Amino acid sequence: MEAHEKGFFTEANSVEVVTGRNKNAKDARLKAVMEVITRKLHEAVKEIEPTQDEWFEAILFLTRTGQLSTEWRQEFILLSDVLGVSMLVDAINNRKPSGASESTVLGPFHIADAPELPMGANICLDQKGEDMFIHGRIFDTEGKPIADAVLDVWQANDEGFYDVQQKGIQPDFNLRGVFRTGADGRYWFRAVKPKFYPIPADGTVGKLLDALGRHPYRPAHLHYILKADGFETLTTHIFDPDDPYINSDAVFGVKESLLAEFKRVDDPTRAKDLEFAGPFWEVEHDFVLARG
Amino acid sequence: MEAHEKGFFTEANSVEVVTGRNKNAKDARLKAVMEVITRKLHEAVKEIEPTQDEWFEAILFLTRTGQLSTEWRQEFILLSDVLGVSMLVDAINNRKPSGASESTVLGPFHIADAPELPMGANICLDQKGEDMFIHGRIFDTEGKPIADAVLDVWQANDEGFYDVQQKGIQPDFNLRGVFRTGADGRYWFRAVKPKFYPIPADGTVGKLLDALGRHPYRPAHLHYILKADGFETLTTHIFDPDDPYINSDAVFGVKESLLAEFKRVDDPTRAKDLEFAGPFWEVEHDFVLARG
Ligand SMILES: [Cu+2]
Ligand SMILES: [Fe+3]
Ligand SMILES: [Fe+3]
Repeated sequence: MEAHEKGFFTEANSVEVVTGRNKNAKDARLKAVMEVITRKLHEAVKEIEPTQDEWFEAILFLTRTGQLSTEWRQEFILLSDVLGVSMLVDAINNRKPSGASESTVLGPFHIADAPELPMGANICLDQKGEDMFIHGRIFDTEGKPIADAVLDVWQANDEGFYDVQQKGIQPDFNLRGVFRTGADGRYWFRAVKPKFYPIPADGTVGKLLDALGRHPYRPAHLHYILKADGFETLTTHIFDPDDPYINSDAVFGVKESLLAEFKRVDDPTRAKDLEFAGPFWEVEHDFVLARG
Repeated sequence: MEAHEKGFFTEANSVEVVTGRNKNAKDARLKAVMEVITRKLHEAVKEIEPTQDEWFEAILFLTRTGQLSTEWRQEFILLSDVLGVSMLVDAINNRKPSGASESTVLGPFHIADAPELPMGANICLDQKGEDMFIHGRIFDTEGKPIADAVLDVWQANDEGFYDVQQKGIQPDFNLRGVFRTGADGRYWFRAVKPKFYPIPADGTVGKLLDALGRHPYRPAHLHYILKADGFETLTTHIFDPDDPYINSDAVFGVKESLLAEFKRVDDPTRAKDLEFAGPFWEVEHDFVLARG
């Protein structure tokens, strides 16, 4: 009988010895997951060959990351985000049929009870920022408009803050709204041009980014959740392709297909129709939902 | 230019996109380590294909593991222990020349200021448990005795508790001692037979072990740190091969070469010499230190 068959640890048989203990796992999925985690963890340790001090540094990093998390902050989600794990899980769970709009991360700033508004409403409640008109259509993969599709939109203001980050400064529900399409699948509303913003950078994740020579910024975007009966719910963003951080989103949320066009419009008649005082931004963007 | 060259995330190029951001890392070692961690993490996620709920369960597990850690408890070290990572780091950092005694994990119960005692001292200060006489020699790899070698020993009592876990119940420094060899490299002292004990099982790690059908016990052992000028310090255990958990140490500390022999001795003359009241356990075990 060899050492590892007796349950004794050897460097060469480390994975087999550890996963061999899970024979009586209560849950087959957990057992399978732990087999992969153990194997990949041991592969990583064998490739890195950490010193005892490096191992302990990693232990402290993980501990502090857990301890930084509160009801209002989740530093491990942030870590998952900046390592591309959140986007990978999103990708795996949202493989779309050809032609459907792609998903991206939800982010921490969605709230469930934003008000349903009539088409055309201005979701900017404090008149700060550059006016923006957004419109488009919601289709199925055969190009037919979807009626009664619900579009839930939220965005940061022109200083890069969400309303929930600036309670008392921004009005409640500023730059949030829920819209419902008619038979033509069209949506349209007014807002202000969003700005890039940093993810929280004062914790362990911020320090890691800094040590890696990475900045904490997300390029300007609007968040959407699109729902319609008979279709898969789509959680996504649209991005400003001219944002300085468009090629280096700290959380890897950008995909080619999520780049929208932000056009500057200087047309007094259209501005007047939209009740804007002067030139404004126009974004036209269509979405395609997959049947669910 | 392809998507990932623009910094845009794709499932296929996820590792390249994420590690590509570390070009300006401030530290080459950190950069190399994060390359491995990111790659193995993405490999694991791609193989597991976690649902969003499973991903969130993992986030909460890690968060709670960090939050359980205090000055007195380190749940992430415990996690590292039960996944065999601590033993793997130990193995990588303590590859010994042929013939030298093998190392194992330090564990959380060593204290730096245990008293130096004369050879033969009884480290059991409360007369509880079965008497044990331990002796042996400390050699170099050529078989020459090492003089002035310092042997630091600590162990749990016959109920499976260390003194520091039972302050006020066990005397301070119970079952701890530091001994120094003479020219013959011999050591000898008296103690009590140790017992198996559980690692702390009331936290996230305990729940994980339970879900995996694993017990939290470590087989009975004595801890040693052996130091001598000109030699590598050896942190190790010796184990009772008849312990019920000898083939399933919760932290994988057991190695074939660390099994000692615990002999029951019923010899009134020898017992009297050792100031034992009756039959006792005898453990003879030699150590070999590698030149450092
Ligand atoms: Cu032996
Ligand atoms: Fe956002
Ligand atoms: Fe121990």
